[in-house]
Amino acid sequence: MNRIEELKKEYEKNEKEILEDFFTFLKFQSISSEPEYKEEMKLCANWLVNYLKNLKFNTEIWETSGHPVIFAENLNAGPEFPTLLIYNHYDVQPVDPLDLWVSDPFEPQIRDGQIYARGAQDNKGQCFYTLQALKSLLKPDGSLPINIKLCIEGEEECGSHGLSSCLQEKAEKLKADYLAIVDLGISSLNNPSITLGIRGIITMDVEIKGAKADMHSGSNGGLLYNPNHALVEILARLRDSNGHIQIPKFYDDVVLLSEDEKALVSWDFDVAKYRSMFGVFPTGGEKNYLPLERNWTRPTLEINGISGGYSGSGFKTVIPSSASAKISCRLVPNQDPEKIASLIKDFIESEAPDGVTVSVHLHHGGKAMHSNQNSKVVQAFKEAYSEVFNKPCVFVYEGASIPVVTNLKIAAQAEVVLVGLGLPSDCIHAPNEHFGIDRLKIGFLTIARAIELLVPR
Amino acid sequence: MNRIEELKKEYEKNEKEILEDFFTFLKFQSISSEPEYKEEMKLCANWLVNYLKNLKFNTEIWETSGHPVIFAENLNAGPEFPTLLIYNHYDVQPVDPLDLWVSDPFEPQIRDGQIYARGAQDNKGQCFYTLQALKSLLKPDGSLPINIKLCIEGEEECGSHGLSSCLQEKAEKLKADYLAIVDLGISSLNNPSITLGIRGIITMDVEIKGAKADMHSGSNGGLLYNPNHALVEILARLRDSNGHIQIPKFYDDVVLLSEDEKALVSWDFDVAKYRSMFGVFPTGGEKNYLPLERNWTRPTLEINGISGGYSGSGFKTVIPSSASAKISCRLVPNQDPEKIASLIKDFIESEAPDGVTVSVHLHHGGKAMHSNQNSKVVQAFKEAYSEVFNKPCVFVYEGASIPVVTNLKIAAQAEVVLVGLGLPSDCIHAPNEHFGIDRLKIGFLTIARAIELLVPR
Repeated sequence: MNRIEELKKEYEKNEKEILEDFFTFLKFQSISSEPEYKEEMKLCANWLVNYLKNLKFNTEIWETSGHPVIFAENLNAGPEFPTLLIYNHYDVQPVDPLDLWVSDPFEPQIRDGQIYARGAQDNKGQCFYTLQALKSLLKPDGSLPINIKLCIEGEEECGSHGLSSCLQEKAEKLKADYLAIVDLGISSLNNPSITLGIRGIITMDVEIKGAKADMHSGSNGGLLYNPNHALVEILARLRDSNGHIQIPKFYDDVVLLSEDEKALVSWDFDVAKYRSMFGVFPTGGEKNYLPLERNWTRPTLEINGISGGYSGSGFKTVIPSSASAKISCRLVPNQDPEKIASLIKDFIESEAPDGVTVSVHLHHGGKAMHSNQNSKVVQAFKEAYSEVFNKPCVFVYEGASIPVVTNLKIAAQAEVVLVGLGLPSDCIHAPNEHFGIDRLKIGFLTIARAIELLVPR
Repeated sequence: MNRIEELKKEYEKNEKEILEDFFTFLKFQSISSEPEYKEEMKLCANWLVNYLKNLKFNTEIWETSGHPVIFAENLNAGPEFPTLLIYNHYDVQPVDPLDLWVSDPFEPQIRDGQIYARGAQDNKGQCFYTLQALKSLLKPDGSLPINIKLCIEGEEECGSHGLSSCLQEKAEKLKADYLAIVDLGISSLNNPSITLGIRGIITMDVEIKGAKADMHSGSNGGLLYNPNHALVEILARLRDSNGHIQIPKFYDDVVLLSEDEKALVSWDFDVAKYRSMFGVFPTGGEKNYLPLERNWTRPTLEINGISGGYSGSGFKTVIPSSASAKISCRLVPNQDPEKIASLIKDFIESEAPDGVTVSVHLHHGGKAMHSNQNSKVVQAFKEAYSEVFNKPCVFVYEGASIPVVTNLKIAAQAEVVLVGLGLPSDCIHAPNEHFGIDRLKIGFLTIARAIELLVPR
């Protein structure tokens, strides 16, 4: 029996208990961006700490201005063995619109082999199979095959401010040879892949203010400049009809992949499959690029929310006193989040028509990051994925962002690998998020096997 | 003592009871556009019917597909006297956003001589001073100086469908020499005026649909066409940078005022005062027209509501599955609401980019209407206003709409006058709607005096 088969047997022996513990983890309403869940965030963090203590980890809770960071280490392998730092997060996205969920987002439910719950994939699912791998590798003497550090933060979904602010102070603690970010995905269960890069991000709020109060659209129509119109006019100017972003200097610092890097990546994209999954063709982004180029290697600008005036049932003939939008950009290597945010703010504010005031409130951002495909940790995970899936593992990139990753890599001085088993159909950040029961096991196998492959031979 | 002084004295004698009854009227949550208030609408209608019975009116409740219409008549003056039909409405606008109200919209509160409540002005206040005038003119034999009919509808704020649908059937009942629409305003308490025209209206909902579900804006950014972007792009194309509406053929049927009509109207507009009241300069509408031309005699297109994606606290990096807007136009004489609505629907739907579907749902509209300034009823009200205010009453137009008025005028075969004591600062259709206690009295005086002036001499 090969090693993968051995690990599988062990997992199956414990599966009932694993699912029970996972459901407990999922039930915490750990929504980091909404202040009313602060206590739930703490309860979730405490539960994790206790779980890690049982796995013979020394644990620390790093208090921050926001939600706590959980740090844990098991260095019993000893200094002659390398150290792997693993990153996860225990916070989740908000659940709005709640009425579109088939079952309660915090009462996990299994339907057709999928576990439905907020965080089932992003990132509690991926965090939890990582912990199961460590549990399985734990030797009777309390050591693991290599030294392991864990950094499980609580603010990934709202900017990672707490972890970011303590990276410098905690750099020595975080120091590692390798850093595995277990928060990524694969295109399908037939296509094991390692992610070589993620995009950066900036987010901002746009607020347009007009008259002191909402006004009657008849009595004031033709007099007041309607903030809703100012908003759509300004936002429409942010991109041209080819999807090209119109902010001056926006693309100035963009660095594209080298021909060597490009050659290692598959750019195939199944348009028909995308449409059957999501109901629409992938017509967004810049028209003169391939779909995966647009998603992986080109920056974007998206209006994530827009709101102004009356949107309830019936009709209200009002000129609202204000209108607002939430905007985010995905960034690629060499684009500086603060610089780009500032360019957008200047552009939007300068486009204000007479009769309204326009203000842009910037949030913190994160840089894009690309891995070196020849590093030991990338190669170990590539091999582990190939063994578990029993087929070649390829390289891909990812359109999403994990804002803190670049800075965590610098603090840890580590070679980084981006891995995970998310699927595009998991509905993360949306109603009815789910994760396959089969992927809990596969995740367990990949993490356990990769750690073994990092043991010096 | 002149007639105005006599009427004043009588009002003041009864003021306490008048205010008590008015507050009772205001407490009914008669929001016509929200189905959950259907029962409150009925209660309000029944209360009005009882009130009118006490004024010796024969009352009828006209059931409709929506909320009931109250019809009442006191024809005891006899056939040798003319008949005046008076129009009011007992329904009110929704109260959202509720948190901006200083006091409960349905618990009237007096602050600084103003009565704060939803409907305090529009239209319960104006309806109620009308009833007080009738009460005061009622003779011991149960007759009034002329024959009076009342039509008080319950769907003015949501399209007047019920009243519209029964106008033909009830034409004989509604027949009158004169029709007074008591739902208008004046520019200030120093400027008594009669309104010679109102604009028409059409309203519609725009819905943009993209992917089946809300999607992650990183994993799908550059792939999905974001419905929020489609929405702002399409809506921005509806007007150019001069405020000119860009729908083909939109202005084709517009008829402007004749030079004679123009000459009777004051076009003065106090820009500084507007700004001090509302916090902004009147920079909306078409740039090559005067403010009052834009508000009174030019059509407009306004986005009354816009909504898509996440607008709560914090941030959600989502590409929403849909986005929507509510749009209304104010129309001027000779523009046909159905034709204009259809032009807009065609334009918006034809602008849909690949990757989203765009649909426009049209509601019923109403035509603009202008009065003849030489008619007897216009002249009687002009004289009454001049006497009550003790200064010349001028002619103005109004930017708002009362959709059913044109058809009501046709059914009644009457000469129409548009009057009322609303002020631009009353916050109708907005939080903290209010009406001055002094205006209840002034309204009473104007209606009572105008009715007396309509008695043939």
